[in-house]
Amino acid sequence: MKKELSAIEAKYEAQKIAFGPIYFQSVVALRELGILQFIGEHRRGVTVDAILEKLDVSEYSVHLLLEAAEVLGVVDIEGDIVRISKVGFFLLKDEMTRVNINFMNDVCYLGAKNMTESFVKGKPEGLKVLGDWPTIYEGLSVLPEPAKTSWFEFDHYYSDNAFPDALKIVFRKKPGLIFDIGGNTGKWSFACCAHDEEVRIKILDLPVQLKVAKANAAAKNLLDRIEFQEIDLLDAAQKIPQGADVIWMSQFLDCFSKEQIVQILENAYQAASPETTLYILEPFFDNQNYPAAHYSLVATSLYFTIMANGNSKMYRIGVMKELVDKAGFEVIETYPLIGDSYHTILECRKKQQA
Amino acid sequence: MKKELSAIEAKYEAQKIAFGPIYFQSVVALRELGILQFIGEHRRGVTVDAILEKLDVSEYSVHLLLEAAEVLGVVDIEGDIVRISKVGFFLLKDEMTRVNINFMNDVCYLGAKNMTESFVKGKPEGLKVLGDWPTIYEGLSVLPEPAKTSWFEFDHYYSDNAFPDALKIVFRKKPGLIFDIGGNTGKWSFACCAHDEEVRIKILDLPVQLKVAKANAAAKNLLDRIEFQEIDLLDAAQKIPQGADVIWMSQFLDCFSKEQIVQILENAYQAASPETTLYILEPFFDNQNYPAAHYSLVATSLYFTIMANGNSKMYRIGVMKELVDKAGFEVIETYPLIGDSYHTILECRKKQQA
Repeated sequence: MKKELSAIEAKYEAQKIAFGPIYFQSVVALRELGILQFIGEHRRGVTVDAILEKLDVSEYSVHLLLEAAEVLGVVDIEGDIVRISKVGFFLLKDEMTRVNINFMNDVCYLGAKNMTESFVKGKPEGLKVLGDWPTIYEGLSVLPEPAKTSWFEFDHYYSDNAFPDALKIVFRKKPGLIFDIGGNTGKWSFACCAHDEEVRIKILDLPVQLKVAKANAAAKNLLDRIEFQEIDLLDAAQKIPQGADVIWMSQFLDCFSKEQIVQILENAYQAASPETTLYILEPFFDNQNYPAAHYSLVATSLYFTIMANGNSKMYRIGVMKELVDKAGFEVIETYPLIGDSYHTILECRKKQQA
Repeated sequence: MKKELSAIEAKYEAQKIAFGPIYFQSVVALRELGILQFIGEHRRGVTVDAILEKLDVSEYSVHLLLEAAEVLGVVDIEGDIVRISKVGFFLLKDEMTRVNINFMNDVCYLGAKNMTESFVKGKPEGLKVLGDWPTIYEGLSVLPEPAKTSWFEFDHYYSDNAFPDALKIVFRKKPGLIFDIGGNTGKWSFACCAHDEEVRIKILDLPVQLKVAKANAAAKNLLDRIEFQEIDLLDAAQKIPQGADVIWMSQFLDCFSKEQIVQILENAYQAASPETTLYILEPFFDNQNYPAAHYSLVATSLYFTIMANGNSKMYRIGVMKELVDKAGFEVIETYPLIGDSYHTILECRKKQQA
């Protein structure tokens, strides 16, 4: 959006924002009714009559949804022939786009109506449409479907891609004991155990998350290598124990406000020895390679506002480095956009002079 | 969207669709919290600190909403200075955009979640979030606020601009009696009475609408010039009476499906003499001057699906002319985009050979 827009273009852009929700739902309907898929299967194009013949959808639905899809640039229509566009192809086939749409529709859509209220109260006022919890983290393991599936697919999409390279980075110095702070379902810990036969892990998280992680660990026969410690890091009295070679925080700090992040990092500081390495894995929105990623990450911040906890967000990399510094750590290495991911790893140690 | 997009651009466009709802709500929040207005009042730009000082909004809210606004192209940020963009200016000041956003947020947003279901059932399955009526027309006069205000502002925005030129066209032949079919609150009828001191009007509509129109007419001292006739035009047994010089249908036929439109026009046909002129005023989405208008009108069709009646839409001008022909009328004159409006008037007579 760097070039100067004409008034006509700017008015058009404003309407795209104004009608974003209803056009979003038209794409969901195109997908749910199988129309987009049918068109996508025929790259040379199909006629409206063929769509009506093959799919059990009313003429009204097909005509109107194609009018919407054409306006959105999701299909191209020439005469009687409908073809999927590149945008339509991404809506249909791209995993990032699929995961984002489902997350928006199943987790965020209804709750987003309460955005102003969420900002005013500093609480996720949209969350009540899914359940009665102070934050979504207490409810994760019992979210109603399809919100639960869509939440976990979204979460894993944005972290799984980072794991292979992250493992290489973390295990370069062959740590014996890793603290997985906010370990959630245990995915990272299990990946570590698979990567290195000797490493031991301690997952620290809220009780409700630990229950799930423990069950998953049992299913994988990893209870002898993984310990579990209940901790609420918003309570400064609950200390992270000492003894870790690596303290790992993967997409964890973005769940908190700046003040809370400093408090959590100070907690890690008291637990760390001069030899402990603190790794922070985060998708920073301002060091992405392409605009779709930046766009997705800022939207994810808005999800934190309305559904997650009302006060956290994705950060700029410079802001996170300031918070790290404030807590007494220094960033000794930055690994930007590792693997095919949106994530950067900050490798941190206690400051020498501290 | 005519130019060929690169894969990176197409992926970006797909994310704009995917996150449309949450970014829409971020713009609503920017507006409701007064942030957009404050920035707009300082065309040379303001600092974030100035926003925080002047407005009672948290630092978190301002930072995140500005990150979202920057991604959307609603503000431009250079260093510490935030300026409103042209797109932001339209969001703030343009009446069409204001009316569209309110209509989306207050009338359509929550109901749009039921779009697929609405298409499948051919019923406005989103309407239940506002009330328990088969169509929105039964509920118009008792809609909860703010939906009611936003609905009427939207409706009037898209018709008021057309009235001055429409009056000139309709009164060229000085009609003595006009039937205002689907006259709703009576705005057109009152405009006619103000335009011509001698004209008499008969408003034909559903009972619930007539009640409102009658009260409005009483307040304007027009009960001696306007008659009211209850009619449900979906019931083919209820006939439009004879005797009109002009039969007027303003943004009325778009409330119905193609089959219903033919039935209504056939009803008008039996009521018309060879001298009766039928005027159809409609915004046809395919003969608009700029893309924002086309975009708005197709979105309005989707509103019909989810909230209004589940089976009507804005039409292409060619489709409407076919339906007119099918009912026995011929279009003797087309007045495209009259005044500063989105509307075209089709002037019709019974076919000579009929």
